[in-house]
Amino acid sequence: MTFELSKEFADLLQKAVDEKDSEFIKSTLDGVNPADITETLEEFSSEDSRYVLSILAIETRAEIISNLDEDTLKRFLKIYSPEEIAGFIEVMDSDDAVDILNELGNELAEKIIDSLSNQEKIDHILDLMRYDEDVAGGLMAKELIKANVNWTIEQTIEEIRHQGEKVTQIYAVYVVDNYNTLLGKVSLRKILLARDGTKIKDIYDEEVISVYTNIKDEEVVSLMKKYDLDAIPVVNLRGKLMGRITIDDVVDVMSEQAEEERQLMAGISEDVEEDDNIWLLTRARIPWLVIGLTGSFLGAEVIKQFEGQIAVVPILASFIPLITATGGNVAIQSSSMIVQSLATKSVFQDSYLKRLSKVVAVAILNGLLLAALAFTLSYFLRHDLQVSVVVAALSMVVLLASLSGTVTPILLDRFGINPAAASGPFITTANDLLGLAVYFLVAYYLL
Amino acid sequence: MTFELSKEFADLLQKAVDEKDSEFIKSTLDGVNPADITETLEEFSSEDSRYVLSILAIETRAEIISNLDEDTLKRFLKIYSPEEIAGFIEVMDSDDAVDILNELGNELAEKIIDSLSNQEKIDHILDLMRYDEDVAGGLMAKELIKANVNWTIEQTIEEIRHQGEKVTQIYAVYVVDNYNTLLGKVSLRKILLARDGTKIKDIYDEEVISVYTNIKDEEVVSLMKKYDLDAIPVVNLRGKLMGRITIDDVVDVMSEQAEEERQLMAGISEDVEEDDNIWLLTRARIPWLVIGLTGSFLGAEVIKQFEGQIAVVPILASFIPLITATGGNVAIQSSSMIVQSLATKSVFQDSYLKRLSKVVAVAILNGLLLAALAFTLSYFLRHDLQVSVVVAALSMVVLLASLSGTVTPILLDRFGINPAAASGPFITTANDLLGLAVYFLVAYYLL
Repeated sequence: MTFELSKEFADLLQKAVDEKDSEFIKSTLDGVNPADITETLEEFSSEDSRYVLSILAIETRAEIISNLDEDTLKRFLKIYSPEEIAGFIEVMDSDDAVDILNELGNELAEKIIDSLSNQEKIDHILDLMRYDEDVAGGLMAKELIKANVNWTIEQTIEEIRHQGEKVTQIYAVYVVDNYNTLLGKVSLRKILLARDGTKIKDIYDEEVISVYTNIKDEEVVSLMKKYDLDAIPVVNLRGKLMGRITIDDVVDVMSEQAEEERQLMAGISEDVEEDDNIWLLTRARIPWLVIGLTGSFLGAEVIKQFEGQIAVVPILASFIPLITATGGNVAIQSSSMIVQSLATKSVFQDSYLKRLSKVVAVAILNGLLLAALAFTLSYFLRHDLQVSVVVAALSMVVLLASLSGTVTPILLDRFGINPAAASGPFITTANDLLGLAVYFLVAYYLL
Repeated sequence: MTFELSKEFADLLQKAVDEKDSEFIKSTLDGVNPADITETLEEFSSEDSRYVLSILAIETRAEIISNLDEDTLKRFLKIYSPEEIAGFIEVMDSDDAVDILNELGNELAEKIIDSLSNQEKIDHILDLMRYDEDVAGGLMAKELIKANVNWTIEQTIEEIRHQGEKVTQIYAVYVVDNYNTLLGKVSLRKILLARDGTKIKDIYDEEVISVYTNIKDEEVVSLMKKYDLDAIPVVNLRGKLMGRITIDDVVDVMSEQAEEERQLMAGISEDVEEDDNIWLLTRARIPWLVIGLTGSFLGAEVIKQFEGQIAVVPILASFIPLITATGGNVAIQSSSMIVQSLATKSVFQDSYLKRLSKVVAVAILNGLLLAALAFTLSYFLRHDLQVSVVVAALSMVVLLASLSGTVTPILLDRFGINPAAASGPFITTANDLLGLAVYFLVAYYLL
């Protein structure tokens, strides 16, 4: 059914490349989906890929290049001249073209744009380059089908015939007035079933959900999810139709968001992947480890204050991991609950006071259960009532960790920082300090 | 542009419901997107929602009900009779209908199916209920437009007119032979631009990517992402067209996956949300906390073996959090790198040996950097060379944590468990034990 990409196939292709057997390559890759060719070429050297690409049609070539992951893309484009890159850009969707130009730096991008011959494409690209990558304007493509509200079905079909080649998936035809103001949309199905001579104004749907160019990408994602949209038109502040965002771009944004959140939660500070080099991987990991280490030295200073007591009751030291681990686990649970509810914001959210009092209630319940268990275990293992009472201070640690785990992501979100950062090593480190202080203070007063 | 949902609007609606002002409700909700009505009604009592729904058209009602989140849905459906629920099911897409029936338990589901009058709908539902929820068969809807390869364009358009109402978004018309075997697809654009009398067999596209009914949902997601598909046909093992999956369902699966991973990483064992009740929230959180706590008691036993030493050099105790926190952070970083690369599996993955040796290299580099920093800090703060050397045992802890963080998710994945579980409290707890043992053993031999 679908083409099965395999290591054998890649080896076969590599052999053909080595032998410069262009006929074999052409016939092998005929009918293979460009996405599969992309995956194969990502494993090839830039020169070999260039050779394979040179055999393919320019449209296939451009599609493969716009599919490449960032690292491979940079590597590939280095071996092409600005004029050659301009050739690819010419046949790409405007949004993919701009993504690539943004990767290349201003100087090279300008050279490439100068080499473009299609004035419409140049205008599209220059328009899109004005927007940040993380707003609707930066996500949208200029390619879309629009129809004037006064047109007939025949005129609209003619426009689809004319513009259709440039638009990969039509989804709907957007309806505008003489000033390009978005008025609504009409589905292909309606056009298909309409009688000859029907006017667009008589069949179009005025209820179209659109976004402004400056809307944040997360908001575009949540709108398209909520309303199950496959495409959303983008308008400027005066309501003029500027472009449209399609669902495949939104799916990419969602994957990036998930990856970013995973890295934040794990305390990885750069966008790295397992196959990056050792130096990059270390650079991405060391910052949070150093912060955690520094935090632990602060913790060591806290414990140092109670060294006298530990010398007398060394058993106290053995419960340090209990305090820090439980505090950390509780804090991460709490903050991930908040991150989740921030991600699915609703207008009906309860007041902060109500939410916080619930957090406290859950914390007290959890804290009491855990403290009871810890007290029992420690009493049975050590037969020391006083120490077991100290261990039950765990309930206070749970409460504090719940509060800090709840408040931190909310504060981060307020300051415009991704709240998922709170679920990482940050919260663990902060809670170690807090928990240790509480534990040893209780020990100090009780023992 | 879009309807702005607000607390004021909800209050206004609530007041109208209290006064049973059906005219006002009808006129206010006219033209409001069902997704917005859903969001509002989720905050209402079941009885009030029932009243609002009773005023709306049956199609709108069914759409609202299929949009509801799981908890609200269960709450809502309790106040309806099986016959009334059958009324909603009758106008829903087959996949949404089955999702709801799956929520209700076998007995009630059977009663509802018995009350259905549309035989085609019954067949669709019974067919879909045979599949697990997490395979392509469980994701697909039966509603789609198909055309026989021997039809003309006119026959196909007639079919679209006939079946079109039942299919929310057409995307493409699937082409089958007389035995319902999937042969290809033809886009609406092609149909629109085709000349009268054209045969489907002359214009259809044979290259259609399809999935078998038993393919896992994650694989469906990654196929649709890779090939930028908006819909994918589902076939049985003999290649017969069984249904299709649309991109909005895949987007939902992606959101669920992200949420599931977040909860696994945070050690939350049930699918809960911030607005669930205190008892549910506690039940979801306590299992991992108890496991962590038990692990910490094992850690306490490890430390207990070295109590004599701690009594003599109490300074040793102060570095316990350094060992456990750093080990935990390193392990979580390592496992999240693996989880990420498992999520984007490629056929070209390096051998395990090569990957593992890279992990070790990164670990040694990180370990040496951290150990050097820890040694320096500890020497400057405590001026005790021997203890500082013991603290530098951190490098070994980092190495072990990297290995366990790398191997655990791979093993979990092998056993069919979501590898993200490795990034949670599990790995922290395991690493505490390992790290403490190493640290105190080094101390034992050096001091």
